[in-house]
Amino acid sequence: MKLITIVELLGVISFAFSGAVSAMQKRLDVFGVLIITFVTAIGGGTIRDMLIGNLPVGWLLDINLITTIFVTYLLSFFVHPHAGKIRNIIFWMDTVGLAVFTMVAITKGLQFHLHPMICVALGTITGCFGGILRDVLLNEIPYVFRKDIYASASIAGGIVYFISAKISNDHNISSIIAGTVIVLIRVGAKFLNWRIPLMYAKDEN
Amino acid sequence: MKLITIVELLGVISFAFSGAVSAMQKRLDVFGVLIITFVTAIGGGTIRDMLIGNLPVGWLLDINLITTIFVTYLLSFFVHPHAGKIRNIIFWMDTVGLAVFTMVAITKGLQFHLHPMICVALGTITGCFGGILRDVLLNEIPYVFRKDIYASASIAGGIVYFISAKISNDHNISSIIAGTVIVLIRVGAKFLNWRIPLMYAKDEN
Amino acid sequence: MKLITIVELLGVISFAFSGAVSAMQKRLDVFGVLIITFVTAIGGGTIRDMLIGNLPVGWLLDINLITTIFVTYLLSFFVHPHAGKIRNIIFWMDTVGLAVFTMVAITKGLQFHLHPMICVALGTITGCFGGILRDVLLNEIPYVFRKDIYASASIAGGIVYFISAKISNDHNISSIIAGTVIVLIRVGAKFLNWRIPLMYAKDEN
Repeated sequence: MKLITIVELLGVISFAFSGAVSAMQKRLDVFGVLIITFVTAIGGGTIRDMLIGNLPVGWLLDINLITTIFVTYLLSFFVHPHAGKIRNIIFWMDTVGLAVFTMVAITKGLQFHLHPMICVALGTITGCFGGILRDVLLNEIPYVFRKDIYASASIAGGIVYFISAKISNDHNISSIIAGTVIVLIRVGAKFLNWRIPLMYAKDEN
Repeated sequence: MKLITIVELLGVISFAFSGAVSAMQKRLDVFGVLIITFVTAIGGGTIRDMLIGNLPVGWLLDINLITTIFVTYLLSFFVHPHAGKIRNIIFWMDTVGLAVFTMVAITKGLQFHLHPMICVALGTITGCFGGILRDVLLNEIPYVFRKDIYASASIAGGIVYFISAKISNDHNISSIIAGTVIVLIRVGAKFLNWRIPLMYAKDEN
Repeated sequence: MKLITIVELLGVISFAFSGAVSAMQKRLDVFGVLIITFVTAIGGGTIRDMLIGNLPVGWLLDINLITTIFVTYLLSFFVHPHAGKIRNIIFWMDTVGLAVFTMVAITKGLQFHLHPMICVALGTITGCFGGILRDVLLNEIPYVFRKDIYASASIAGGIVYFISAKISNDHNISSIIAGTVIVLIRVGAKFLNWRIPLMYAKDEN
């Protein structure tokens, strides 16, 4: 199995697990948890594929992916009570997942001959909309809109990719550099407590 | 008119009516009720078609379907004050609708050569996402995530279909058996008060 | 640049700005505002394109559109504190935008040989779903479902278009007449305080 596939699966598992845990915290029934798990794991890629016309969307043809998510779903019922203890593991999986999903989407955008700026947007959509759909279904304002350097890391990574690709003319090297940038920004945000400025005037009502 | 078409229309009418009633309970204006009515009736099939690439999506080419939903919408303003009295009729229409929609989607999945597990997922998406979209638009956590044996009936029916098809090698007979199972599970859930276990440890925070 | 393109850009800018202002009122971070700005501006057209199979969806290939929305997003941080003073300008931009989007969508529906009733629905979806998605992401019941003659204006304009096209057999003239009707209905609703009747019986629980 290729390294990229392993890393991709880690990302999917992490997204699926974050969906399952969120759904359980809202005390949904087993079916509700199932749907939220899947939507979180594959929602971003699904929207990407529907936008560019890559149909049927990827997961409909990838039974291994579905099985992986389903096993994660089953395991999450046992792991859930200990979610606090493995928070750090989830953070790392999630961060690597974001980097990989962003790069996979940018690669797909290039295959469809889309403009670099659009590719960056596709990368961000793929990385973030699973979580956005999760929060919408759980009746909350999406988390990424409020408190986290997450989407910004994906956007920054996408821009770094195109700068690097322009200079090096090498897709693989640029992907690794850009993915590393995404991971570093996330790590910096977490451990150095970076924040996105709100940019609102104080006198606003 | 074929039996399947009549039963399908019954399902659409029932879904449309459930959307209209929910929207009126939130006291939306006539346009809000219109949108919720349509989204509830055709939302599941629309998502299914967009996922598999069956475009334009079905209802764009089916003026009879649109007319049926529109007439249901108009009638629901008169029927709505009596919604309590016809609750049982709605239950039966809705149950038959779920069975039919699940089977139609599985059949469509097979035409697109999708894996049985994916076909079951498509059936459940088609049966449930109309109601999920309705609840999201009405700013509520989807009902099917919380209180009802509904999606589970669709999943169980889908699995029964593939077991039966493996044994009998007959699509029609298997569809009827699976559809009957869906109806029976829904009826059992309602009249015998079956519940989906929540599966949460008591000591969870 | 053609008149239609200028008017279309005015509509997009207005929709983008209304999204940005709504997101800032909820005090989202800069990325949240970015997403809401884009979803409001291109959400309706995106759903239209995904429904009819016009893929990749329009904005993926239109870098000018993306740039326009992005510049609007940046400017909205400066304009936002003065949003109250320019409310009237926004109303006019938004009204013209609704008229143009409705007509563009109907034209696209005709190109796909869809039934007039479906074309009217596409026009309304294109004009309204950007705002609906904005409100869903901001965790509110969509504004157009509750308080405004907005969708109704789009529907009325669509019907007028087909009546006029039947009589005059001229697409351009009919589009202008229908667009004017949409603008007039919106203006009438605002300045003459028209309302959509709620149509609920008083004794309803």
